[in-house]
Amino acid sequence: MLPKNGPRIHQIHITPIAIVDPPLLNAAGLHAPYALRTVVELVTDDGISGVSEIPGTRATDEALAEARPLLLGKDVFQLADIRQTLTDHFGTESTAERGLTPWDQRKLVHIFSAVEVACLDIIGKVTGRPVVDLLGGKLRDRVPFAAYLFYKYEGAGGALGFDVDPSAEGWAAARQARALNPEEIVAQAKAMCNEFGFQSIKLKGGVFEPQQEVAAMFALREAFPDMPLRVDPNALWKVETAIEYGRQMEPILEYLEDPVRGQANMAQVRKALKTPLATNMCTTSFEDIPNSVAVGSEDIILSDHHFWGGLRSSMTLAGICDTFGRGLSMHSNSHLGISLAAMVHLGAALPNLAYALDTHYPWQSDEVIRGGRFAFDEGAVAVPQEPGLGVELDRDTLAKLHQNYLTCGLTKRDDEIEMQKVQPGWRFQSVRW
Amino acid sequence: MLPKNGPRIHQIHITPIAIVDPPLLNAAGLHAPYALRTVVELVTDDGISGVSEIPGTRATDEALAEARPLLLGKDVFQLADIRQTLTDHFGTESTAERGLTPWDQRKLVHIFSAVEVACLDIIGKVTGRPVVDLLGGKLRDRVPFAAYLFYKYEGAGGALGFDVDPSAEGWAAARQARALNPEEIVAQAKAMCNEFGFQSIKLKGGVFEPQQEVAAMFALREAFPDMPLRVDPNALWKVETAIEYGRQMEPILEYLEDPVRGQANMAQVRKALKTPLATNMCTTSFEDIPNSVAVGSEDIILSDHHFWGGLRSSMTLAGICDTFGRGLSMHSNSHLGISLAAMVHLGAALPNLAYALDTHYPWQSDEVIRGGRFAFDEGAVAVPQEPGLGVELDRDTLAKLHQNYLTCGLTKRDDEIEMQKVQPGWRFQSVRW
Repeated sequence: MLPKNGPRIHQIHITPIAIVDPPLLNAAGLHAPYALRTVVELVTDDGISGVSEIPGTRATDEALAEARPLLLGKDVFQLADIRQTLTDHFGTESTAERGLTPWDQRKLVHIFSAVEVACLDIIGKVTGRPVVDLLGGKLRDRVPFAAYLFYKYEGAGGALGFDVDPSAEGWAAARQARALNPEEIVAQAKAMCNEFGFQSIKLKGGVFEPQQEVAAMFALREAFPDMPLRVDPNALWKVETAIEYGRQMEPILEYLEDPVRGQANMAQVRKALKTPLATNMCTTSFEDIPNSVAVGSEDIILSDHHFWGGLRSSMTLAGICDTFGRGLSMHSNSHLGISLAAMVHLGAALPNLAYALDTHYPWQSDEVIRGGRFAFDEGAVAVPQEPGLGVELDRDTLAKLHQNYLTCGLTKRDDEIEMQKVQPGWRFQSVRW
Repeated sequence: MLPKNGPRIHQIHITPIAIVDPPLLNAAGLHAPYALRTVVELVTDDGISGVSEIPGTRATDEALAEARPLLLGKDVFQLADIRQTLTDHFGTESTAERGLTPWDQRKLVHIFSAVEVACLDIIGKVTGRPVVDLLGGKLRDRVPFAAYLFYKYEGAGGALGFDVDPSAEGWAAARQARALNPEEIVAQAKAMCNEFGFQSIKLKGGVFEPQQEVAAMFALREAFPDMPLRVDPNALWKVETAIEYGRQMEPILEYLEDPVRGQANMAQVRKALKTPLATNMCTTSFEDIPNSVAVGSEDIILSDHHFWGGLRSSMTLAGICDTFGRGLSMHSNSHLGISLAAMVHLGAALPNLAYALDTHYPWQSDEVIRGGRFAFDEGAVAVPQEPGLGVELDRDTLAKLHQNYLTCGLTKRDDEIEMQKVQPGWRFQSVRW
């Protein structure tokens, strides 16, 4: 008896949304008042819906629309064929297309990630299994995340911009507060850990000169004597800077993330320091792996299923990391609950997970899934047990956030332009100190 | 709504079988009249059965029996947890346990392969999908195999031993014929290709001194001017021998398989030859990969899901091969249709499949699946479209082949002892010429 054909893609809905984002500072500049995401919904001929969420840019949305005719009619189980079809159409991307920003600017990996996650959501629904079970099964019931601290201007983001909502309390108030020095970073950390229970802390660096950021790390160590600590200068430091300040921080760091730019420089710093190095900037695709192995550029790869071509590819990356003795954890950008759910399913399937994952989720206040935002318990998110990703679109908030997109005027992320509004003439530098 | 729990393992049937095997010669000696396989059947609490087949030894059967209480009650979707449970119980195996023989002697990888393939068979049945769809989907409808030639004594194997069935015709007659020189190898190749339509040819070498085997390859080239040709001396050659004869064969070989023993020697030969090198002996586990990459020991890894820990692990290996620019194809031992089905599903899912797979299947005449033996069309096997592996146990032949096992007296493969029955005093040498 032959099985009936797999569920086929009958409709593809591509919905760009803009979500409120506070004025967070980073190596590339300043977060705009809204972060852009694209929500992709695939609907099968049987009316089963699968969803995914990826970083939003008009270019990606246009490419997704261009891919639509290639995807309609495809069996959601035939992911290898879908990948091949997209690769044939868009051509192989060079790693150079990633760009110099902390986030990845390649199109094809994003598109395939969007389609793959939504297909896995559908496969989970038709087979009655959570997505984690499609990745080899669940190795933990809760996936730990780290507190992700940012230097920031005062402000709530969104329509409020640099203003604040005076009625906010607790973390909602702290999220609006200024954090431009070590004391304010410690206050941010306390508020965030108090709210979410995180057991690890990461500071997004690359904003102030290294000595200030190192001072913030030591202030965090004093305030949180037992917490694993990380700092991420986003590749803005020179090799000698990274070695100097890296050595200062050796007693207090769990790992140092992307202190310098490029695999060769990372390898040089890695040889000089006892602290493990992590990256989401120098080894960001399978094409980067051979040279990473040859030069020894990092100890830990911070994967991101949006950039590595989906969840199954991320499992392959996990196998590569395991084979070559590298750790694996996860990178994040501003995101909502659909991406978080995908990260949690993947995190639950990873055979080795020694580091709490990054997430921007606490910085967001919007949500597009029914039932509201995910809860954190002691910094961890429980793995959804429902079939598929375990999330359902809230169409009212989706429509509202799409309206935000239409009115906010943003079409891509450009933190340099946002920074120039505050500091005229400010320019991104790929290496600064 | 939470999904009901996954199907759980309720019964585990471990059935050693002995299948008729002709007197094939190889580097380790001579095939016994019967080859041993173990058929594993898992039955869920809902009565759904999943099967697998692995190389048989009493030690593996005993380890499977030892694993039974650990496996009973496990959800078949929780393959990562099952692997972890088995690893915790049996301990991590060293690569040294592989042994020096052409086949792999590790226990844990075999056990996990047996359990994983049977679980995927069940998952396929409960989700209504062929196993290939659980590995990322089907990239080809037919999976190509190569003609696998052996030097051999006259004989049919089994109860006939070195005798032949005089009523045999066509390939069944050729399978019994002597093949001890180039002319007889060419005759074997013609009969096999005529029967199965193979489009590639491999000679199992390591039997006669190199010059004789090289002469056989040139005789094959003359008889099959356009066919890709391979020879496998099973690591019995010295480096200088491999370079000398490898250079002679450069104009006629698709690849040279395991000419020498160990990654360092393979790397030395590889540098000296234009012909790609393939291996199933020097890079046989994930632990071997880092040094393989460091020294450049081969161009093509011949995977075997029985040795690499199952089908999903083999997909991870495929990702590693793709990342490091290595080709991937498949190794085989004497086997029946359950193993063949698993190989075909895997072969159909591999993104890059540039080489026809190895199979001993034409040398076998027995079968344990309903409907009889798989058909080859132009050397290829059509990917089963039924849910799971697409094979069902024939319990009558299974019982008969288990009876063969009980009466044949063999408990493990030992080609040296079999060879000594013909050539008293013959000894296996890990490097011979």
